[in-house]
Amino acid sequence: MAYAKKIEELISSKGIEVGDEIEVIRKDGTKLRGILMPRIDLGDKEAIVIKLDNGYNVGVKLQEGDEVKLVSKGKPIEFESMEIEGGISGEKPCVSILGCGGTIASRVEYKTGAVFPAFSPGDLLFSFPRLKEVAEIRGRKLFDLLSEDMTPQHWKIIAEEVVKEIEEGVDGVVLMHGTDTMHYTSAALSFMLQNLPVPVVLVGAQRSSDRGSSDNEMNLLSSVFFAANSEVAEVCVCMHASSSDDFCYVHQGTKVRKMHTSRRDAFRSINVLPYAKVWYLERKVEYLRKDFRVRDKGRKVKVDTELNPNVGIVYFHPGMKPEILERYAEVYDGIVIAATGLGHVATNPFEDKFAQSLLPTIKSIIASGVPVVLAPQTIYGRLNFNVYTTGRLLKEAGVIGHLCDWTPEVAMVKLMWVLGKTRDMKKIKELMETNVAGEISESSVYDGFLV
Amino acid sequence: MAYAKKIEELISSKGIEVGDEIEVIRKDGTKLRGILMPRIDLGDKEAIVIKLDNGYNVGVKLQEGDEVKLVSKGKPIEFESMEIEGGISGEKPCVSILGCGGTIASRVEYKTGAVFPAFSPGDLLFSFPRLKEVAEIRGRKLFDLLSEDMTPQHWKIIAEEVVKEIEEGVDGVVLMHGTDTMHYTSAALSFMLQNLPVPVVLVGAQRSSDRGSSDNEMNLLSSVFFAANSEVAEVCVCMHASSSDDFCYVHQGTKVRKMHTSRRDAFRSINVLPYAKVWYLERKVEYLRKDFRVRDKGRKVKVDTELNPNVGIVYFHPGMKPEILERYAEVYDGIVIAATGLGHVATNPFEDKFAQSLLPTIKSIIASGVPVVLAPQTIYGRLNFNVYTTGRLLKEAGVIGHLCDWTPEVAMVKLMWVLGKTRDMKKIKELMETNVAGEISESSVYDGFLV
Repeated sequence: MAYAKKIEELISSKGIEVGDEIEVIRKDGTKLRGILMPRIDLGDKEAIVIKLDNGYNVGVKLQEGDEVKLVSKGKPIEFESMEIEGGISGEKPCVSILGCGGTIASRVEYKTGAVFPAFSPGDLLFSFPRLKEVAEIRGRKLFDLLSEDMTPQHWKIIAEEVVKEIEEGVDGVVLMHGTDTMHYTSAALSFMLQNLPVPVVLVGAQRSSDRGSSDNEMNLLSSVFFAANSEVAEVCVCMHASSSDDFCYVHQGTKVRKMHTSRRDAFRSINVLPYAKVWYLERKVEYLRKDFRVRDKGRKVKVDTELNPNVGIVYFHPGMKPEILERYAEVYDGIVIAATGLGHVATNPFEDKFAQSLLPTIKSIIASGVPVVLAPQTIYGRLNFNVYTTGRLLKEAGVIGHLCDWTPEVAMVKLMWVLGKTRDMKKIKELMETNVAGEISESSVYDGFLV
Repeated sequence: MAYAKKIEELISSKGIEVGDEIEVIRKDGTKLRGILMPRIDLGDKEAIVIKLDNGYNVGVKLQEGDEVKLVSKGKPIEFESMEIEGGISGEKPCVSILGCGGTIASRVEYKTGAVFPAFSPGDLLFSFPRLKEVAEIRGRKLFDLLSEDMTPQHWKIIAEEVVKEIEEGVDGVVLMHGTDTMHYTSAALSFMLQNLPVPVVLVGAQRSSDRGSSDNEMNLLSSVFFAANSEVAEVCVCMHASSSDDFCYVHQGTKVRKMHTSRRDAFRSINVLPYAKVWYLERKVEYLRKDFRVRDKGRKVKVDTELNPNVGIVYFHPGMKPEILERYAEVYDGIVIAATGLGHVATNPFEDKFAQSLLPTIKSIIASGVPVVLAPQTIYGRLNFNVYTTGRLLKEAGVIGHLCDWTPEVAMVKLMWVLGKTRDMKKIKELMETNVAGEISESSVYDGFLV
């Protein structure tokens, strides 16, 4: 807990601790009664978080003249303790929640007031008791991590732990994950975990529970409900869908991207529709697509976590020096270029006196055995090397990605995964340009743009 | 011209040349009469382009049994010849069209069938005679260039040529530009050309005139109408707004981005609303904002083209090696990191055994005098270094961009421009984080996301 000092003082002066039932009497006479919650994010330091009887958490900003009273002492809360064990009773679907860090499971650092990740199942069920109504819950923490510190090594661990849970017989797995790199992890798991029998759902929060606008409860309940009950046996991302608090989207793991720094509805499907909408209060799923693997607990998951993390993304831009590409080829075993338009970089076919072609560098990089993959820096849309001179020159040079509609992030993750299998350039190209986990859509969906 | 061989043979066998009036009699008896246009993009090789009496160009796909007749010989067309000179009569507003390459002014290469850029004012007025109804037209070609070959040196030339036109007394300038890097150029011109008296409008085409779905005429007429008549004396981008052919958006030069590889409505305002909608048939402008410099021909443009092109964009991602950042600092004088979320890269404050912090590298780069600027790889939204531990660590390290809502592209262009003025780190930071040309919005507009 790290409320503002004067609030800390106020509540401790009344003998109040987190977990106690309290009552706030506002200056205007209105009253709010509930359990004092730990403060687990930055947000407004003046606001205390109270869990009301109806299960909702509200942030109450104390003002001059407001009064806080202790109603009854609560039981002491064990925060960093145990795993949640049992669960597979067969009466209710059982969902395993694995904590991988991030805002959804974050707390405030005492010293700086900044947020850091700290998941414990104790926190979780205390903060979101309605989880137990949705499904039988198992849970454990894999790591405390900011998602920007997530690495390909962590992806492997997550994949292996998911498999363990599936083999225990759970009906779905939910991964609590930081949002910054969630779409990298969802892509990696999509390649690593094929032939899934049950849903594997990544979920995060853009804002945490001490803020009135937090999306963590809605996202978490939605993801657990979806993991427990939906037919979609795929790696997905479940996040807030709109500015209102009514439903979440469930996106395909290889076709989703964080598209806004702070909005709750930051996650968007790229070039496809989301798999489904989930209404968490109504416990309803509306499917928007039919092209998913249908749940079948008898199916055996195929695990392939081998990858070569030694891949980098280069962002092409006007004034880019060919030299920088050489440096990438020195440092990495494979390169993804975030190229302009349909898949272009400077090739200077008309011998402009200022333009500097990257073509000789790209050719020599490919000749040295380092694959060069293109992805659109427009984010949306499909590459096509056949339309313009530049595309043709790049295709002739052996660049990979013609007709692919992946994001730079997904192309990178896939290249890591493919380089875990082969260093043969022909095989790399073939495997890269063949759809493995939905990363290359067969056809473009009109509604797959900015929705 | 580069129609499919059999079409070339067919029309030359009848003595038909570009510019002649012809009639196509379809197998089903329907007839189309008009002027045979040059084919100026790849598209469908079987389709010939005819300009109808009503001014529209249609692509006609010839099929077995269709007949083509010469109606009358046209005047020979001068394609690569002259500038369009006169124009400033005072009777109608005068717009100067400068050709900077791109699809909107592209032709097909004879040898390969691929598209290359070739603008001539002769082409222009012949292809789009309705231009003359909208305004008095001047025009000249600055260069034949694919927009992916555009460099900061070209931006300077464009800026200088725009100023010449403004000093000649035109009422607006239209720049025909390739779409791939149009938003880089529009940002550069926004910094270089301040205090503009009249509109400077960049326009392009996603598909060219031999395709039925071409957007070049609509975009061009809209941009010329807007340049001639609107009140917005700013650098803007005018492009197709929706899937229907009714209006274009006019976007702010520093707040726009190509967001799709191929769609005609690929250009989107980022974090703000477009300045306006333009209906080209109705010749109507609907303003969506009020915060623009109002046209005033008496105002003197302030030109500042000095820049240091030696700036690169680094794309942060899981598994990124700190080493690659060092390489950037060896090659460039300034670095923009496309960071995750609110402005994060791996800093590993919790000492995870796999994560590799970039913090020491970033600190030593800044200490060596190379500024490090962040921009969101989410594209949309604003950076905030105060929310999470990572942001605080980066802020302490001297990273630039707190509370800025620019794209990586705009941050890069601005850093080039700022480094053209100073290498003093304190001044760089100050100038970067101060709004110069609308690149940092004062407040976030709800409708500025995915619209």
